[in-house]
Amino acid sequence: MKWWGWGQEGISFTHEDKPALRPFIMRHLGLDMERTTSRPVAFEDLDIPAPAVGAELRGALERAVAVERVSTDPLDRVIHARGKSLRDLVRHRRGELGRLPDVVLRPRDEEEVTAILRAALEADAVVIPFGGGTSISGSLEARPAETRTVISVDLGLLDRVLAIDDASRLARVQSGVFGPHLEKQLNAQGFTLGHFPDSFTHSTLGGWIATRSSGMQSDRYGDMADLTRGLRVVTPSGMLVTRPVPSTSTGPSVREMVLGSEGRLGIITEATVHVRRLPARRTILGYLFPSWAESLAAMRDIAASEASPSVTRVSDANETQFSLATKKKDTLVDRLKSKALKEYLERRRGFDVEAMCLSFIGYEGGERHIAAQRKLVGCIVARHGGLCVGEGPGSLYDQKKFDTPYIRDYLLDRGALGDVSETAAPWSALPLVYDNVATSAHGAFDDLGVRGYLMCHLSHSYHAGACLYFTFAFKPSGKRDGLEEYDAVKSAIQQAFVDSGATLSHHHGVGTEHASWLEQDISAPGVLMLRALFDGADPGANLNPGKIV
Amino acid sequence: MKWWGWGQEGISFTHEDKPALRPFIMRHLGLDMERTTSRPVAFEDLDIPAPAVGAELRGALERAVAVERVSTDPLDRVIHARGKSLRDLVRHRRGELGRLPDVVLRPRDEEEVTAILRAALEADAVVIPFGGGTSISGSLEARPAETRTVISVDLGLLDRVLAIDDASRLARVQSGVFGPHLEKQLNAQGFTLGHFPDSFTHSTLGGWIATRSSGMQSDRYGDMADLTRGLRVVTPSGMLVTRPVPSTSTGPSVREMVLGSEGRLGIITEATVHVRRLPARRTILGYLFPSWAESLAAMRDIAASEASPSVTRVSDANETQFSLATKKKDTLVDRLKSKALKEYLERRRGFDVEAMCLSFIGYEGGERHIAAQRKLVGCIVARHGGLCVGEGPGSLYDQKKFDTPYIRDYLLDRGALGDVSETAAPWSALPLVYDNVATSAHGAFDDLGVRGYLMCHLSHSYHAGACLYFTFAFKPSGKRDGLEEYDAVKSAIQQAFVDSGATLSHHHGVGTEHASWLEQDISAPGVLMLRALFDGADPGANLNPGKIV
Repeated sequence: MKWWGWGQEGISFTHEDKPALRPFIMRHLGLDMERTTSRPVAFEDLDIPAPAVGAELRGALERAVAVERVSTDPLDRVIHARGKSLRDLVRHRRGELGRLPDVVLRPRDEEEVTAILRAALEADAVVIPFGGGTSISGSLEARPAETRTVISVDLGLLDRVLAIDDASRLARVQSGVFGPHLEKQLNAQGFTLGHFPDSFTHSTLGGWIATRSSGMQSDRYGDMADLTRGLRVVTPSGMLVTRPVPSTSTGPSVREMVLGSEGRLGIITEATVHVRRLPARRTILGYLFPSWAESLAAMRDIAASEASPSVTRVSDANETQFSLATKKKDTLVDRLKSKALKEYLERRRGFDVEAMCLSFIGYEGGERHIAAQRKLVGCIVARHGGLCVGEGPGSLYDQKKFDTPYIRDYLLDRGALGDVSETAAPWSALPLVYDNVATSAHGAFDDLGVRGYLMCHLSHSYHAGACLYFTFAFKPSGKRDGLEEYDAVKSAIQQAFVDSGATLSHHHGVGTEHASWLEQDISAPGVLMLRALFDGADPGANLNPGKIV
Repeated sequence: MKWWGWGQEGISFTHEDKPALRPFIMRHLGLDMERTTSRPVAFEDLDIPAPAVGAELRGALERAVAVERVSTDPLDRVIHARGKSLRDLVRHRRGELGRLPDVVLRPRDEEEVTAILRAALEADAVVIPFGGGTSISGSLEARPAETRTVISVDLGLLDRVLAIDDASRLARVQSGVFGPHLEKQLNAQGFTLGHFPDSFTHSTLGGWIATRSSGMQSDRYGDMADLTRGLRVVTPSGMLVTRPVPSTSTGPSVREMVLGSEGRLGIITEATVHVRRLPARRTILGYLFPSWAESLAAMRDIAASEASPSVTRVSDANETQFSLATKKKDTLVDRLKSKALKEYLERRRGFDVEAMCLSFIGYEGGERHIAAQRKLVGCIVARHGGLCVGEGPGSLYDQKKFDTPYIRDYLLDRGALGDVSETAAPWSALPLVYDNVATSAHGAFDDLGVRGYLMCHLSHSYHAGACLYFTFAFKPSGKRDGLEEYDAVKSAIQQAFVDSGATLSHHHGVGTEHASWLEQDISAPGVLMLRALFDGADPGANLNPGKIV
């Protein structure tokens, strides 16, 4: 993992194979992609304070896990200091490291995790669980003024599928497994979890649970909150175990308290999750809609219909234009940008091609099932003036879906800031949420005197609403600290969410980034209940303190 | 509502129109249904202590709600003293009333509920919310030694559907509405909640939420935990409001803390719930399976298939025989009991008709959708040796589904005890749960030296498991208090649940009846978390203390 950016060393976003992108970015952000203006400081130049681990605690930790899995290596500590929020990337690139963890531990099993927590509590140290380190909500960083020893517990060695209950379609899985390794183990036995968040390649099961993650096929498979049944969590009062029962009436749901707990209640070591047989066939089709309003209405109607697609997603006009600009030279783009198609859309279908919206709808199952679903969806799409453009766009989407997060580093190298904010709301509120976010973001760009781009897609459809996922980018004015300008835009968007009846986040968690909107979202008594829960379960405030509330 | 039994005055179970029932009961319980041996004490003979409401509190309550909605009427207090657990019925019939509430309040809106809670906290009184009073888990009774004033807050006047958001398929509904009145209001606008628990006619939306209720069409509509989105709850720290968003990543789910909270966190005044358009068509078909094992396997395969029935339910052999014995004289029973069918099943299908299992599977939607579902289900049923027996049994089931709870009073009148215990477990565990419960219950019957009957159905199928719903009945030996013998049987069943990997209850809640198994189900740290939550939200222990933990 890069210490200064997203994902693997050697992989990065590039515009060079995307001929339309450079002019697109120049037009919308006033930024020349050929000019790299900023680079992270060299690792050697970082000012890394010595770790503060008392001899007694160090001894206890070395007894808890083997000495070679107790690390105070500077690179390890820097990597484990934060997640990958834009604020994290900017500060790390600048060499502003914040409160580094003093030690990184890599337990191999639940017993070792238990021993670590016992030793940490004994020494009144702070424990921060670490999965893939992809949090973009500030869930992984110790409080700046933390005076106690900070222990990062990297769960990467707990990476096995322990058992699959074929009849119940449940798998017992260790929490530290990364997405691809998990799917590989499940696929080998003919199963899939079906959870594919954008961070899939770099994030872990435990992280998905601790943040209430949602994957791009959630329409069919459900969110992590649905997929997760049994849990094993090492807590200050012992092993918390919830049974993998399908539904239960045992008071307020303890299972749902662990989901989204971001390390505040304990360290998740294992989960029993839904798995499904790999589908016979899987396909993602592209559709075009004449407008955002018709797109939203179509997705709403699909969710109410007897069709059950695995993916429903549609980009607004800005994101559609961006998608077309980032496509490599290929037949699809040629087709979508071809004069013949343009003429057909404009003259025969009455499209304004600048306003059209590109959608992906996925189907899974047997041939007959897929055919029936496609037909049901096709009728709804047609009713809203849309048309199917075949499998090409879908397969392209499938290929590039996990590459998107690399673009933030690419923009930072060029002096621009790009980030995402996502939410969920009832169907009836989505047009208002969308409009208010656009007004607020552009208001913020104007206040800063910068050119900014805002785009959005709808994804994760539910019975009563959907997720709206916004991406924004701008070149800071240079008059103020870039992060201050970032805050102005990001805050304007978040405030528009909660002011419009939407939630502060659909699947990115609260951490520190979103904590200031929590009370507006769940009300003061809701915050009080969370505090009561955390204080009661962790009276010494040793477990990732300062997050969520 | 009867003060001493289930449901409405004037409605009761009878064997007189069921010619096969008397010999059936005689054979299995040694009980003659013609002989009524026990009746509730007369209301006039009850010993009802004077209500203890201080003048100051009474004044405050009369200011909170109009004086005519402040009741200390003896019948009101007796009715609001308990729910309808078997223990409640037996003790009420005996005239053992326990700790009666001192006063029953009937607020008309949220403001009045708020004023009641404020007055109660001011006076350090105990507040117990009351919906339909159908709890069979002891959630409604004040602690026996409670010395503070006990206030029962009857929410029956909060009975309106406030708004339907057509586009989002969400309805804002007041919590005190009873099932039929709720459906009537929704149906008038073309919608349904689709929640039909056995208690439907006598229970309320708020009660369903506070106990995590599940209805017989949950396969399609979901449990209350799925159906409930937004919540408004009057709490000691103000109005708790969760937004009706489809999914959210705002830390541990406060929404899921209110679900199942049984009055421990506050008084639910309003919920925003999923609604669906009334289906074009609805049908329930009957099926017969040759054995319980094949029945379970078929339900498991249906849950994994591309079919999406609205109801899946199958009775074991004992419940099938009981169902046949309780049928009125009609063509269905004639058909199922006919010699020709018996011969067909035995000779051509190899059935043992004493071991066969009757199943109901429901379908909803357009003609084509229903036909496709029926076909998919039909193939699975056939694979497990079952056959369809048409719409007759299903329509009968539909008619009598809400009458079942009356049978407990009928048995009590004849000196027998009958009750239910239900659970949920993964598919793979269901055969073991079933066998262990049978062994445990019959072991308990044997220990008591009584003849007992145990029967079971599977209902509420999920991806990874299902609910098993057990009904048991026996005639006490007469050597000990009947309730002690009841406890021996009920405890044996509950213990078998948790010992077999199942949960203490799928949809009846914890209350006081199931509280002793809570730690075995959710582990000690889980109980600690619940305690922390309740203590933090209700520091004075004024809200229905003693329930759940």
